[in-house]
Amino acid sequence: MIATSPATEEQLRRLSRFAQVYELIKIPERDLDAVLPTMELMLLHSWPSIITEDRVGKMKNLRFIQSALAGVNHIPFHLLDDDVTVCSNAGAYSDEVGEYAWALALAAAKNVVRFDSALRSRTWVDKPPLEIGKEVMILKGKVVGILGYGGIGRSIARVARTLGMRVLAFSRKPVREKDVRSFHGKGGLDRLLSSSDLIFSTLPLSKSTDRLIGSEELSMMKSNAILVNIGRAEVMDQASLYDHLTKNLGFVYATDVWWLKNGKEELPPAYPFPSLPNFIGTPHASGPSAALTGKPMEMAVANTLRFLKGQKPKNIVIRSEYL
Amino acid sequence: MIATSPATEEQLRRLSRFAQVYELIKIPERDLDAVLPTMELMLLHSWPSIITEDRVGKMKNLRFIQSALAGVNHIPFHLLDDDVTVCSNAGAYSDEVGEYAWALALAAAKNVVRFDSALRSRTWVDKPPLEIGKEVMILKGKVVGILGYGGIGRSIARVARTLGMRVLAFSRKPVREKDVRSFHGKGGLDRLLSSSDLIFSTLPLSKSTDRLIGSEELSMMKSNAILVNIGRAEVMDQASLYDHLTKNLGFVYATDVWWLKNGKEELPPAYPFPSLPNFIGTPHASGPSAALTGKPMEMAVANTLRFLKGQKPKNIVIRSEYL
Repeated sequence: MIATSPATEEQLRRLSRFAQVYELIKIPERDLDAVLPTMELMLLHSWPSIITEDRVGKMKNLRFIQSALAGVNHIPFHLLDDDVTVCSNAGAYSDEVGEYAWALALAAAKNVVRFDSALRSRTWVDKPPLEIGKEVMILKGKVVGILGYGGIGRSIARVARTLGMRVLAFSRKPVREKDVRSFHGKGGLDRLLSSSDLIFSTLPLSKSTDRLIGSEELSMMKSNAILVNIGRAEVMDQASLYDHLTKNLGFVYATDVWWLKNGKEELPPAYPFPSLPNFIGTPHASGPSAALTGKPMEMAVANTLRFLKGQKPKNIVIRSEYL
Repeated sequence: MIATSPATEEQLRRLSRFAQVYELIKIPERDLDAVLPTMELMLLHSWPSIITEDRVGKMKNLRFIQSALAGVNHIPFHLLDDDVTVCSNAGAYSDEVGEYAWALALAAAKNVVRFDSALRSRTWVDKPPLEIGKEVMILKGKVVGILGYGGIGRSIARVARTLGMRVLAFSRKPVREKDVRSFHGKGGLDRLLSSSDLIFSTLPLSKSTDRLIGSEELSMMKSNAILVNIGRAEVMDQASLYDHLTKNLGFVYATDVWWLKNGKEELPPAYPFPSLPNFIGTPHASGPSAALTGKPMEMAVANTLRFLKGQKPKNIVIRSEYL
């Protein structure tokens, strides 16, 4: 197998009991064309640009790919044979990314970025306290809508309940959890969007989520809603979202994720979101902060070991959703 | 009685069943010197500047003051007779101010303000994801220290537990709550400060909390700790804190409250905190955002009615702590 991710020595040793492990970074490029076609398993973070389309096409022994990232939208499914098992790392980042999602949501709700900026730029002018208070959204008693109800969604919901919010969840499978109202399908999505004061998207990027939120969906949301994106940027139609923000200054979009260009998140983005007052952006820090705990790689290694031992791995993705 | 706060018509009617109620704003100034000395009760937010020291000195019938603000440090205790009962509005702002405290804490922990500012000012330069991740503090498993464990402290603790943090509390009375370690006294304060990754001050301003945190206490804190002030600014010694921040750039101070000058929070403050990179500031928005829910005034009115009906009011403050 080939590992392209920074696994620890100890993790590499555990994998080596069941497979011959190559670290991509240690293979001279002139040897790649000989080595790659013999590989049966891959363990990777982002897709390595050195493994070109041409080289993937020749990896005829490949049977298993484990993503150390939560999502798998970076895997070139169209180049893989049908019998290659691909596993996401769903759940590995849940609580840490959940924390990050709340940082964005609360920064927006409490107007922290704009207040701090006004004090910092010395443009602050005294206002009566109640005028200042009006620039803040109280969350207690409000409605939170969560798009995608996997590990991150559940982690977000726990905090929402502690804050005294009502929780709505949109997912493929019905959510059977106390205090969570479950929505699915186009009608369910519309009802959730129109009812929520605060909306989190934790959705992965797949065929069914690509540009799920366009101008029609945005127009259903409350005019002073907060939309937080902690999943994948492409779930939002970039042009429609930019247009919506310029026309609805009470609406806030706060995001840690960005639209891909040539397989990489583009910063600054094609539309000048960071120049908008009702926008908060961070450079995809949530996942890396979680990765630094070591937990995501440990879970990816554990799942790879399941496959190597002949057990059924967790988080097998449905190939057709990404083609 | 005299009401200086924006109570609703309905609240004024309820009070009128037990007292003759004057709204300060409706009394012509030429009548004040005749009316004020007859007043027995006061219901107020901030202290009205029109009720001068001279005028307070002549309010010989005064028996009761209800603050609609959470704290009472704005009440001129030194001008009041011993038998005047003063009540704070402790608890009325708890959950709403708790939300705000978490907005500041998470903005600091997740580096939201600095990330957003770098994207916004087009000074963003691409960094490897793990370098970005290092600028973020994961809270799960970390230690939170809460100074002052009233309603706001408990509200903060609930969220901390949901995030998987260990909770330490510093208060006069021992805290007997599951999963909370209780500290008191100077030794207890020092142990809490040195053990915590994230520290919230919810302390009111009184004789015993005035400049409680000076250079000695700051030097005990972890060099990368986050200190959030949602109580009163004066709990921090302003000069020591500014000095500490300039010398410890990994340490962050995030505050919604400011040092008083002539009875009013001074913005910008005497020391140029808003020019520091490891500082986040907002213009005392937490209390006003809570006041707008109407709950604090409702609680203040209910407590005033207790006194008027001959019942013991809640939140009677100990006069000697403010003299």
